[in-house]
Amino acid sequence: MSEGENQARVIPVILSGGAGTRLWPLSRAARPKQMLDLTGGGSMLALTAARVADPALFAAPIVVAGADQADAVAGALSGIGTLILEPAARNTAPAIALAALDSYPDDVLLVLPSDHLIADPAGFAAAVRRGLPFARDGWIVTFGMKPERAETGYGYIERAGALADGVFAAARFVEKPDAATAEAWVAGGRHDWNGGIFLMRAGTYVAALAAHAPDILQAAEAAMTQGAAVGHRIHPDAGAFAASPSLSIDYAVMEKAEKVAVVPVDVGWSDVGSWQALYEVSARDGDGNAVTGDAVAIDARGNLIRSDGPLVTAIGVEDLVIVATGDSVLVVPRDQCQRVREAVDRLKEQGKDKWI
Amino acid sequence: MSEGENQARVIPVILSGGAGTRLWPLSRAARPKQMLDLTGGGSMLALTAARVADPALFAAPIVVAGADQADAVAGALSGIGTLILEPAARNTAPAIALAALDSYPDDVLLVLPSDHLIADPAGFAAAVRRGLPFARDGWIVTFGMKPERAETGYGYIERAGALADGVFAAARFVEKPDAATAEAWVAGGRHDWNGGIFLMRAGTYVAALAAHAPDILQAAEAAMTQGAAVGHRIHPDAGAFAASPSLSIDYAVMEKAEKVAVVPVDVGWSDVGSWQALYEVSARDGDGNAVTGDAVAIDARGNLIRSDGPLVTAIGVEDLVIVATGDSVLVVPRDQCQRVREAVDRLKEQGKDKWI
Repeated sequence: MSEGENQARVIPVILSGGAGTRLWPLSRAARPKQMLDLTGGGSMLALTAARVADPALFAAPIVVAGADQADAVAGALSGIGTLILEPAARNTAPAIALAALDSYPDDVLLVLPSDHLIADPAGFAAAVRRGLPFARDGWIVTFGMKPERAETGYGYIERAGALADGVFAAARFVEKPDAATAEAWVAGGRHDWNGGIFLMRAGTYVAALAAHAPDILQAAEAAMTQGAAVGHRIHPDAGAFAASPSLSIDYAVMEKAEKVAVVPVDVGWSDVGSWQALYEVSARDGDGNAVTGDAVAIDARGNLIRSDGPLVTAIGVEDLVIVATGDSVLVVPRDQCQRVREAVDRLKEQGKDKWI
Repeated sequence: MSEGENQARVIPVILSGGAGTRLWPLSRAARPKQMLDLTGGGSMLALTAARVADPALFAAPIVVAGADQADAVAGALSGIGTLILEPAARNTAPAIALAALDSYPDDVLLVLPSDHLIADPAGFAAAVRRGLPFARDGWIVTFGMKPERAETGYGYIERAGALADGVFAAARFVEKPDAATAEAWVAGGRHDWNGGIFLMRAGTYVAALAAHAPDILQAAEAAMTQGAAVGHRIHPDAGAFAASPSLSIDYAVMEKAEKVAVVPVDVGWSDVGSWQALYEVSARDGDGNAVTGDAVAIDARGNLIRSDGPLVTAIGVEDLVIVATGDSVLVVPRDQCQRVREAVDRLKEQGKDKWI
């Protein structure tokens, strides 16, 4: 197995359907995380697309996004091959099914979340090249992110034997472990984080759905055959797509599939899944403050300070997240930042939707 | 000495010339503290005027304000007798001189800062009645606020012998003491806080200026004689007023004057001179949070949270001041809130005047 110059390029499938509240109040229902510029380098979506823009390896991407985000996505990205607009959110397994059904069976798809960071794109591209022969040979190739801590919020991939240099058969996909299990796995060195990135032939995925989640495949097929295409935009049929179960690819396919490979990588991956995670990947000043926007910090240390416009003045405070958007201010200790969900839940209860 | 029904009413002189940065970023150069509604009951200026609105005791007030605040003051208050518009800020001694010179010598003036709170206005009015005979008799009557702590930021008035029930001769006016001195004074029971409120005949004040600060008197006289009156508004001459020294009444007059009396009061006075001071006089919820405006507090205790508009979400934080205006956010521990001045100074250094 070797990658020939004349073989077809990989088609990136960028999943841009998520909403999420973990970076609330910056991320909002109408302004999902992938549309945010969290690093100063552009939106997460644009950074994701740039990561798979090398024409020697990649074709123009398929982007799968919520229908309400169509213009935002089109405005954020140039060079989209196809924009598939989900009529409703049904999680990743159905979203990827739409892209796979829009491709030829032998097309190799690289499925990527649109809202993760990778600090070393060249290392990532090398890993894709490493996995590519296996994808062409019918494997579902995953990328195992080197675990940096005993994180209980992620899924893990356990390695089995080596298939080639830097490529292993995957023994197991496991969802969020308890703390003791996570610690044992990280210490053991055979588990990697599941970063939600997959490389496989379209036909491999369709066959896996047929075997393990036929109702998803059926709904996606109906949605595509009954849908409409306008230019490069595809509108799957809403009624047909709504019939699909809402399942992740991990749950619907990966935990059950045969011929799953894992390419371990150490490429500075982050899902930026919390304000704390953003703090960790951000540049900081001499006092450990990660500051974006207009701010005055006096005798303040270890804070994430982020403003969309208002001047933020932090005096004598430590290890806080302080976020100011035009209409909302959040103050929470960094180590409690997962609790923003509680605030969003309370706002929902109170019907204060304008702040969600 | 007794207050006869037929005697002229007291003329309140409300000093509204201050700017101040201690409640920054809510108070601003263009929106001084007296224009703020800090309690939900109206602006500090309006509350001050309401405190001296009883027609049985008080005539229509003279308000002395900065020229740039003319319309704001007129909009905030109805029933102003005279609005004297200072062409420049020259501290309290010259400001009161303008009001005294606009009055008949036998008019009794009650000089009041416009940005203090008094929780018990009836008690305060009773104290004014108690001091009134002495004011008519040529004394400068001050009001000694019962000290609640060994505050080093205030001036103190030391009592000498009693002149009448609840009225004492003042032994000394003393500026901000050190901590040990303040503690000794509060323990000793003969010192009260100087609340900056004075009751005296206009002629008494003019004579005191002639004796102790003749250059202030001369500048104020020239400013009034060369000034212009438009309706109820008086515009003292700018050039003449600019020649006045900039001095407080305490320094220019009170520390030197003869026949100074003090009426000790316990009327819930606060100068609301810091966010901490505002917290102390504010209503609080069961978690000790004093909240004004849209806010969500989750597992948050002892915070002052104040918003002019943005939703403020505080999670897991204690004893903070969190203030959000349309264009500025402040986060500082309550016990460090005096340090807002450092932020204002830094903004000045950086030329960021729009936030000051």
